[in-house]
Amino acid sequence: MDQVDQWDIAVETALRERDLPCVRALLDERDAAEVASLLEREDAADRAVMYRLLDRDKALEVFELLDAGMRAELFQGLRDEDVAQVFEELDPDDRAQLVDELPAGVAGKLMRGLSPHERELTAPILGYPKNAIGRYMSTEFVRLLPHFTLGDALTHVRHRGGEAETVYMLPVTSEHRRVLGVVGLRELITGRSDQRVEDIMVDARVVRATDDAEAAARQVVDAGLLAAPVTDSQDRIVGVVTVDDAARILEEAEDEDAARQGASEPLGRPYLATPVFGIVKSRVVWLLVLAVSALLTVQVLDVFEATLDKVVTLALFIPLLTGTAGNTGSQAATTVTRALAMGEVSKRDVLAVAWREVRVGAILGALLGTLGFALAGLVFGLPFGIVIGSTLLLICTLAATVGGCMPMLARLVRADPAVFSTPFISTFCDATSLIIYFVVATWVLGIS
Amino acid sequence: MDQVDQWDIAVETALRERDLPCVRALLDERDAAEVASLLEREDAADRAVMYRLLDRDKALEVFELLDAGMRAELFQGLRDEDVAQVFEELDPDDRAQLVDELPAGVAGKLMRGLSPHERELTAPILGYPKNAIGRYMSTEFVRLLPHFTLGDALTHVRHRGGEAETVYMLPVTSEHRRVLGVVGLRELITGRSDQRVEDIMVDARVVRATDDAEAAARQVVDAGLLAAPVTDSQDRIVGVVTVDDAARILEEAEDEDAARQGASEPLGRPYLATPVFGIVKSRVVWLLVLAVSALLTVQVLDVFEATLDKVVTLALFIPLLTGTAGNTGSQAATTVTRALAMGEVSKRDVLAVAWREVRVGAILGALLGTLGFALAGLVFGLPFGIVIGSTLLLICTLAATVGGCMPMLARLVRADPAVFSTPFISTFCDATSLIIYFVVATWVLGIS
Repeated sequence: MDQVDQWDIAVETALRERDLPCVRALLDERDAAEVASLLEREDAADRAVMYRLLDRDKALEVFELLDAGMRAELFQGLRDEDVAQVFEELDPDDRAQLVDELPAGVAGKLMRGLSPHERELTAPILGYPKNAIGRYMSTEFVRLLPHFTLGDALTHVRHRGGEAETVYMLPVTSEHRRVLGVVGLRELITGRSDQRVEDIMVDARVVRATDDAEAAARQVVDAGLLAAPVTDSQDRIVGVVTVDDAARILEEAEDEDAARQGASEPLGRPYLATPVFGIVKSRVVWLLVLAVSALLTVQVLDVFEATLDKVVTLALFIPLLTGTAGNTGSQAATTVTRALAMGEVSKRDVLAVAWREVRVGAILGALLGTLGFALAGLVFGLPFGIVIGSTLLLICTLAATVGGCMPMLARLVRADPAVFSTPFISTFCDATSLIIYFVVATWVLGIS
Repeated sequence: MDQVDQWDIAVETALRERDLPCVRALLDERDAAEVASLLEREDAADRAVMYRLLDRDKALEVFELLDAGMRAELFQGLRDEDVAQVFEELDPDDRAQLVDELPAGVAGKLMRGLSPHERELTAPILGYPKNAIGRYMSTEFVRLLPHFTLGDALTHVRHRGGEAETVYMLPVTSEHRRVLGVVGLRELITGRSDQRVEDIMVDARVVRATDDAEAAARQVVDAGLLAAPVTDSQDRIVGVVTVDDAARILEEAEDEDAARQGASEPLGRPYLATPVFGIVKSRVVWLLVLAVSALLTVQVLDVFEATLDKVVTLALFIPLLTGTAGNTGSQAATTVTRALAMGEVSKRDVLAVAWREVRVGAILGALLGTLGFALAGLVFGLPFGIVIGSTLLLICTLAATVGGCMPMLARLVRADPAVFSTPFISTFCDATSLIIYFVVATWVLGIS
């Protein structure tokens, strides 16, 4: 780790001193992954300079490791003759991702400039909707027929395997490309060469090209597969999705969930490489939406202003109560959102989730309520203790239930559960808990 | 999806009717991954019944796909004769994980009962600290020597590859097990059989057995590797870590981060399979800590009670202001925590992060402040507009800076950045923003 850090610094120093041969030599020392992660930390101008200093093969490798947004930016900074060449050499799935990020005119021109073979490999990917796994699949794969002997199959892989995305999972199909099973390369080489493919093939776990990319990727990772065949609506193979593509898809999905959970949009690129206004943009909409929703709390308090004027002590507990409601709601929302993302919970569990959260909320509320009753009672007298204690019991129960159900409701209307982010639920709980608080207070303290 | 759901229901119905042959037949229909995800949805008793109905090979596969906590529980529910057998058949790395979850006495007895060969494979894994990648590596791998011809190497893989965790990435080592490079099985089978291993091997990306598991796993996934050799402090190979192990490690880490972000501890098992008291336990400590910290807000308001008593309208904006501060702080904290987890930002960037967040916070504060000034000014008069506007500007700047720096500080003291969870930062921002609010109000409104 320390060594890498010093290498970073050496490259940056050489770059500042415009000692380009030295930068090139330093970049040559490390592998593509390390160069890519260095590039992701630099600003756009330095990144472009460094990228052009890489030798051709490494440049392509580095390019494929960068974030999607950054690829498009870098790509547009290349000279025209380089652009066409890089585009031709990219894997078809990476090429399809890039097409999404580029202005339509540029993308169209590039697609027309492709060799017929590469265009043919890319077109099917672009035919699927943006969130479908078909958009991430590789169309370069080697398929086997069931009657091949293992010896023939191995020869087939040797000849055709050079271009393929993976040869470690080999789909077995009928003549009409219908998936019959899969064979691992390990089983192929350890089997007897006169055995047939159909003797050693096992059931395939396939995904549909139109399936949601995140769900399909999660299936591949959870089942511990190296790759899975991707099929069209007639069960014919159209591509394969590999575990490293799947891991990348999940990482992007986690990015989005994590950002939404904190009420911002994903940056789509590394933090330090995002301009300050880019960060502002990712946060401002949510912040405004939440602030405007919070006007609700101003209105609730306005209604109870007379009560507040009589017993100003009530104001002291406002942040404590709204905070506790918000926290309880967030806890429930986070847990259920995660469970939905992991496929542990599905739509039909909505009642089971609600009933669990009612109980969890009531237990937490009883604990905190007892504590609140004791503390507030000691300092501000018994009636006040009763107000704080019973308010805590009620708001914890309500907040946990609401926090648990909101992500389920989002899923029921087919929205992203993470849209009902923690802060959104907090704001909702704030307003509700204030109403409960003042109703309980008016009643217990006998304020009219 | 629908089809799976109906299969779920069929199994559950058969189970309720105690029609065990039917349950067995239904379980036989689906692959291990589907059975595992069904088992994870059931309660402990049903899970144990279903597990015992699986045939031996599938049972082992299913066992390896379950969450760590669930494995230990299921394991302890098996008959003694089954326990020893399952333990013997597990992969060494899965066995090591299980040892961690079992009571020490049980684990020790099982380890002593292992065959010498299996014990030898497991012992090195158990020698590494709990968070180290060495704890997750596989000790069953096939290594090649550089002078092997490709033909010899392939024969070697054929003979030795049966037991190995992977044969798709083959480490090349010296006689003394020092890692010299790696060879992919694809390159091995597509090369000429008289070439030597050293002619086609490429530089290895190795991880140290004592490296942090999450960081090492992220390296493997980010570099798009199928596996990486794991070495000891003398650069000798001790194991390999595969991309599916890496993806699982990252998933667990995301679980923990997601839970902490929502102020709870990870459940360690699927939501619906966790007893209500388990969920309460995962939340209660954080909730209490946060509620006790929130007592600070009661004290701050207590200090300003006289001011509140004079201008009760000030109370109306308390939830709006504390909420906005909390949201701004969460946004910054979430973004920076994620950037740290992804390795986009490191310790030495603390000043760069602070300076970015000061600017982002100030811009957001200026936007919200202008809006607050206009709205509050219109409804409650100019002086009130000035109070709300300038308070928003100040608290957004402060909250973004604090939210961005707290995860960095956690990393500097080597704590988990996610410990300074969103709600924790919210609570801190609540108290600070109240102080700013009342100081500004006292000054602008001229209250004494």
